[in-house]
This record gives sequence, structure tokens and C-alpha cells, in this order.
Amino acid sequence: MDNKLTHFNEEGLSKMVDVSDKIVTHREARAKIEVHMDKDTIEKIRQGSISKGNVLAVAQVAGICAAKKNYELIPMCHQIPLTGVDIKYEYKDYGIEITSIVKTDYKTGVEMEALTACSIAALTIYDMCKAIDKKMYFTSCRLVYKEGGKSGVFEND
Amino acid sequence: MDNKLTHFNEEGLSKMVDVSDKIVTHREARAKIEVHMDKDTIEKIRQGSISKGNVLAVAQVAGICAAKKNYELIPMCHQIPLTGVDIKYEYKDYGIEITSIVKTDYKTGVEMEALTACSIAALTIYDMCKAIDKKMYFTSCRLVYKEGGKSGVFEND
Amino acid sequence: MDNKLTHFNEEGLSKMVDVSDKIVTHREARAKIEVHMDKDTIEKIRQGSISKGNVLAVAQVAGICAAKKNYELIPMCHQIPLTGVDIKYEYKDYGIEITSIVKTDYKTGVEMEALTACSIAALTIYDMCKAIDKKMYFTSCRLVYKEGGKSGVFEND
Amino acid sequence: MDNKLTHFNEEGLSKMVDVSDKIVTHREARAKIEVHMDKDTIEKIRQGSISKGNVLAVAQVAGICAAKKNYELIPMCHQIPLTGVDIKYEYKDYGIEITSIVKTDYKTGVEMEALTACSIAALTIYDMCKAIDKKMYFTSCRLVYKEGGKSGVFEND
Amino acid sequence: MDNKLTHFNEEGLSKMVDVSDKIVTHREARAKIEVHMDKDTIEKIRQGSISKGNVLAVAQVAGICAAKKNYELIPMCHQIPLTGVDIKYEYKDYGIEITSIVKTDYKTGVEMEALTACSIAALTIYDMCKAIDKKMYFTSCRLVYKEGGKSGVFEND
Amino acid sequence: MDNKLTHFNEEGLSKMVDVSDKIVTHREARAKIEVHMDKDTIEKIRQGSISKGNVLAVAQVAGICAAKKNYELIPMCHQIPLTGVDIKYEYKDYGIEITSIVKTDYKTGVEMEALTACSIAALTIYDMCKAIDKKMYFTSCRLVYKEGGKSGVFEND
Repeated sequence: MDNKLTHFNEEGLSKMVDVSDKIVTHREARAKIEVHMDKDTIEKIRQGSISKGNVLAVAQVAGICAAKKNYELIPMCHQIPLTGVDIKYEYKDYGIEITSIVKTDYKTGVEMEALTACSIAALTIYDMCKAIDKKMYFTSCRLVYKEGGKSGVFEND
Repeated sequence: MDNKLTHFNEEGLSKMVDVSDKIVTHREARAKIEVHMDKDTIEKIRQGSISKGNVLAVAQVAGICAAKKNYELIPMCHQIPLTGVDIKYEYKDYGIEITSIVKTDYKTGVEMEALTACSIAALTIYDMCKAIDKKMYFTSCRLVYKEGGKSGVFEND
Repeated sequence: MDNKLTHFNEEGLSKMVDVSDKIVTHREARAKIEVHMDKDTIEKIRQGSISKGNVLAVAQVAGICAAKKNYELIPMCHQIPLTGVDIKYEYKDYGIEITSIVKTDYKTGVEMEALTACSIAALTIYDMCKAIDKKMYFTSCRLVYKEGGKSGVFEND
Repeated sequence: MDNKLTHFNEEGLSKMVDVSDKIVTHREARAKIEVHMDKDTIEKIRQGSISKGNVLAVAQVAGICAAKKNYELIPMCHQIPLTGVDIKYEYKDYGIEITSIVKTDYKTGVEMEALTACSIAALTIYDMCKAIDKKMYFTSCRLVYKEGGKSGVFEND
Repeated sequence: MDNKLTHFNEEGLSKMVDVSDKIVTHREARAKIEVHMDKDTIEKIRQGSISKGNVLAVAQVAGICAAKKNYELIPMCHQIPLTGVDIKYEYKDYGIEITSIVKTDYKTGVEMEALTACSIAALTIYDMCKAIDKKMYFTSCRLVYKEGGKSGVFEND
Repeated sequence: MDNKLTHFNEEGLSKMVDVSDKIVTHREARAKIEVHMDKDTIEKIRQGSISKGNVLAVAQVAGICAAKKNYELIPMCHQIPLTGVDIKYEYKDYGIEITSIVKTDYKTGVEMEALTACSIAALTIYDMCKAIDKKMYFTSCRLVYKEGGKSGVFEND
């Protein structure tokens, strides 16, 4: 396998890679991101989730909508009709770990949709809490799983 | 200053915070993100920048356009007419550090626009290189500077 | 049949329902909305339709474009490639009845696309006439027909 | 006051009305819509609001984002930078009454933004509940309040 | 006056030019495009304009909406709140000449909005007529007028 | 073959043509546009392409993204999932000739996507260079090739 960057044409300009000849298969991708925050902010988010002011409910909508919008954000991405999107949140000592799960039946994979979904969910948490915790930051944003298509299963948890 | 989350109404549902009474001032925000990658990938990006296949030229457009699109991505963000957006890239041992600089003259700040710009620029680099380096990851995504508005200058580099 | 709301995951957050295993079938949905207005406004719209100033020609474009944009408006909707959209207008004593007809060949139905199309067509009529009839209102907005998919034909005229 | 439709040019084609000479003032608009549904569906929404599965939290995000997107939906609307958007829900015997409140400081009003916000919030409730209550319908969608600009206060509750 | 391309930063990457220090003035731009077509196609469009099937009514909406969407299409353009958009059509021997007129009160001009508006109006005419006249083509697309801002009036008719 | 405009319904209002019964085939379309400019501007673009300030790299991203966005711009166009987009630039005496190549596997063709891609690429070149060459203009924008679907191959170079 040679390492040529596939997203450029012979003149060296970017292109949307031609996937016409690829076959439609079921594909899935998962990505993770860690949102680091103050203990106090974690507590506020947790309380809101069980009473009034659910930060995660807003992040959830933002992340799912961002997955659908991915092809408008990442210039060379294909328009992929997603068949399912979900996002999970796990409270950690440092804050919240977000995991996105994106599915499609299409000619190319949904890694970017998964990464965009969890990035925008994380940014939405920041937006909702930035008045009290401006130093919140994001780390370990990565693809953790991918299946479907010629390259098979990828795991990187 | 109490720590109430400002983005919720009295019923506990999210709202777009009313900034009608705030005054228009010049505002600026900067955010950073680190893109960690293989040595080989760094080298390919560097070569492309000076010959054919400029990954950063594509990331640049994606990041700037994402700043303009921020209000569509982060649900409670205001529609802020940006007066300037730029993004810088610095080669590091681990890969590339991205810094976004966003400006406006408006009633509320552009932190989210800066964070979104560098996140989407980073994701675009991933997209352009994922065929050769699927384990690339993002870290230390954070607001590093903010000026303008009542809360004054914020620095977090 | 149990009444669980299908659009939430086990943590109680919204999700885009997984339709990966559903089969592609032809699907169609129709929705209606009534636009109530002054006698004088009806007359102005009718005259414009046959001479200069066709309000319905603008509403038509708005409604059709809104059907295509539905997945960006209703957060948990899938991106459905529509194979046909049309909108009909019938003059009534109270104003205008709008009927949208939306078609696809996909894994899930187009009810929301039909409802969005006629809602936005109605709002566009309001926008074009609000300078002369601010009290115009919309009523009886509903799904009237649906076919395709496991649940069969639904009629509610 | 003559009743000419202001949104058409001399050739009878639609135009975006020229507001260059209008002055910037604070403006506000409120709209309402009634969502009629089964008793059982009301109960499910109410339960979800206080435990898991908050339909209104999703509708809230959808409605607020739709207000920002209004200028893309209603063809002749201006791009108005909104300074605040909120949406309220009141349980009724027939279902839920939705009230949107939209604010700006601009040259033209936000009636359409308010109407679009409550329409899309209502449609989102339908989407989230349509698996259990396909006959849900919308009625009495109307502008109820408007202030700011030359035409003064309008009330229609 | 030196001829440096203003849309690039010191690293040679594109940027959204910083207009923070520019003052808000009234600005206007006009652009033209010629749509060349078969005699028969001209006749069909003309007939539709006065009876059923008004191609120009659809092109009008498309062109006006494209002006509002310009900042999403041309990557380095600012988000400019337009205060007025109109488009005129003149029948010619060769087909139709389209003229767009775009206005704003902002820190930077609306040349691109005017060019985009008439380009998309022209493309919409093509789309509506391509089944009968695939060889239709566009020519002489250009900025014809510009006023407002430091550079004063520009005329190029 | 009769010359009826297919994009209108029986009432004379525009519609999205029903392609439900058409079969999915591989389709391709190519369009061209000529960008006429000063000798000096050509030289600046050429220099930037090989050192810093690559105008064509920005136009490339804009054109490809516009192809994906075509269905939002041209009102009656279907949402077509594109399988490949590329754009080529050839230096000429008069300036630059742009050729777009768009592919899909779908029920209807991608002529409009190809025309939109090269139009927006051209407009982006204008935007990047308008500070030095406001009289730049576009000409000979046309469909040059189309294959796939019932009507077979079309050539118009």
C-alpha cells in the first residue's frame, strides 16, 4: 500500500474521491472525545440532567444534527444518508466522555460523521457552561471503531 | 457571581440568551487544538504545502467557513456577523498545532466561533489524511484568548 | 403495540432511530393546512395569480425547498432523498387550503417532509401578505395520507 | 392605507423589500400554536419531561434553531440577527400550547421568526410522538404580539 | 496602489479579510448575466410568464435566496445582512438579460452577492428549460455597478 | 417529443419532477466556464499556485462544496448523493477555463451540479482577485458532456 494522499487530483488540487465503483455495504463508526471541566461544572450538569436544565439533551441534538451536516463542514466528504445516530455520555473524574455511534448503508464510511458528532456535542457542552467554566477543554478526540467496506474492522479504543 | 447556567429558562428548557441590552463592542477570540499524527503524515502534509496537494489550504477554507456556520451548529449561539477570521498552523514534533483568530463587532463574543473553526480545520486534516493515518487524534482543544465585552480579557495559553 | 417513544435511547436522550435493517420501498405522504384570511386578501392573492404578483408561486418554491430541508429542521429526521414534491392550493371561503404530496424510495417515510412543506408554504403566504392582513392564521395542519413501509396505508382526511 | 402587496416589484415578481432607510429599533414578536393530541400522548410527554425522554427539550432546540434559519425558509425574509429566542409550553386539555418569543435590534420585525419557531417546535413534537399518535394536529397558529418599528404594538391573543 | 491579493495571510493561506475597522455605509451592487437560448425557448418562457408556468418567478426566488446564501458559497465572503434584493429580466434577441440589484448597510460591499444572485437565477432558468434546450448558455456575467465604501462608484455597463 | 416544460404542475406552479419510476444508473456531467481577466491577474494567480496564495485551491473547495449544495440553490433540483466531483483549470490567453466533472449513481442527472460547481469556482476566483481586477467577467458557461439515463450521451464542447 502506498501512502499517496487520495484526496488530490493530478494537478495537486483537492477532489471529492470517486466512489462510483464501490459497493453499498453497511458501515458503522464510533468516535470519542473527553470534555475536561471543573468538579463544580460536572455537578451542575449532573443535577440538570435529573431536574431542570439538561445540558446533555441540548448537546445530543447538536451532535446528531452535526452528523447530518458533516458533508457541509468537511469539504471533500460525500453526502451520506445516515441510517442511525446515537451519542452516549459517561461521567468521569475529569468531566464527561462522549461516544458517538453513526451508521449508514452506503459506498463510503462514516468516520468523519462520528468525529464531527462528538466534537460538536462537546462544543455545545462548552457553550452551555462557558459562563461558569471558561477553561473547560477537549482532549483525546479520536476514531475508536469502524466497520464495513473493503478495509474491514478498525479498533482503537 | 452565582453559577447558574444562563442558557436555561425558568422551566428548565434551553434558550438563546437575551443580549438585546448589551452594547456592541469589538470582540476577539482565539482557540487552539493539537493534531497528533505519524511522523510520516507530518512529512506528507509539509511536502504538499510546498508542492502539490496542500492539505492545510483545504483545512483553512473549512475552518473559516465553519466559523461562519457556528450559529447553525451550536444550538444556543447567536448569529454573529464576523469581521475577520484567520487560522494559523505550526509544525510540532507531535504533528500540527492550529490557532484560530475570530473577530466581530457585536453584542456577544466569538469564543464558540473560534473553537468551532479550529475543530473543523483539525477534522479536515484528519479527513484528508485518514487513508494513511487513521489513528490521528486531537487534543488540548481550548479557548486561549478572549477580549471585548464586560468580562474583559481572558488568557489561557 | 406498546407506546414507547422510539426516539429516545436507554439513557433517555434523543436519538436518530436506526433504520439500517429496514428495506427500501416506495413511500408517499400528503399533508394539509388551512390558511384563514380576510376576504380581501383572498381576492388579492387570486388576482395576483392570474396577473402580476403571484403569491402562490413563491409559496410553492418555499414549500418544495422546505421539504428538502426538513432533515435540517426536525432534529431526529433522516436525510431522505425525495423523488418528487408537489403542492396544491384550493381557494375556500375561509382562505386557502394547501395540500403537499411528497414521494421517496427509501427506508423510512416522508410524513415530516409533507408537514414541513405545507407549513412553510403557509408561512410564506403569511409573509407575502402580512402587511395587509396580520391576523391571518393557520389551522388543521395534519397528515392526511401515508403509504409504503410496514405500517401500510394511513388515511386521515 | 392601500393594500398593495409590498413583496412584488413593478414587473410582478417577488423581491426582498428594501429596508435600507428604516432605522434600527428593538423589536419583539410572539406567536402561538396549539398541538392537539391523545390524552395518552400528553401523559407520555409530561412523564418524559420529568424523567427520561424529554420531547420538549428536543422541540425547544428545534424551534430556536428554526428561528435562526427562518431567512433560509421564507424566501423574501431578511437575515435578521436575533438577540434572544425562547419558547414556552403549556399543558392543556387538548394537548400543548406553544408560545415563541423572539427579539432583535434591527430594521425590520421578527414576526416570521416567531411563527417559524413555534411551527417547527410543534412539528418536532409530532415527529417524536408520531409512532404512537399519527393523528396529532396543529391549529390556531398565529402572531399574538409584535412591538417595535413604525407600526407600533400589535396584539391578537 | 499595489496589487497584492488581499485574501491571503502571511503564510500564503486564505483568510477572511479583517474589516473590523471599516465603517458602516450604505452599499449597493448590480450584476448582469446573459442567458442565450433557442427562439422557441424564449417564446415558451414568455408565454408562461403571462399564463401558467412562470419560469422567471422561480428564478427570482432562487436568485434572491442565493444572494442571502452567498457567504456560504464563496468561502472568504463576510456574512452581510442584506437590506434589499431585486432581480430584473429583459427579453433580448438572444434570450434573456438578467440584472440583480443588492443593497446593504455594512462594512463591506455586496458585489459577490449581486454576482451570485444573477448566476443562480440564470442556472434556475436552465434547470427549468433543460428538457427542451440543453445547449442554453450563459455569457457576459459581470459586475456593472457598485457604490458605497472607500473606493467610491464603479461603473462597467 | 413535445416541448412542454416539465417542471410545472397542471395549475402552472413549479414542482419537483417525480422521478420515482426512473432507474438508478451511473451518470456523469461536465460543464465549462471561461474566466476572463487582466494579463496581470493571470500572472498573479499562476505565481500563487506555485508559491504562496493559491487562488485555485480555494476555488476548488468552493466549487466542490457548491456541487453538494446545488439542491439547495436550484429550487426544483433533487437531492443527489454525488459519488465524485473534480474541477480542472487551464490557463488561456484570456484567463482561465474551468471544467467541472460530477458523478453519481442515481435516478436523475447531475447537469445542474456541474454547472453550479464551475460557476461558483469562477465566482470565487473573482472574489479573491476583485481588489485588483474588478472587470473580470465570465463567459461561455455551458454543459459540455452528459451521460447516463434514458437520453444517452450529450456532447457540446
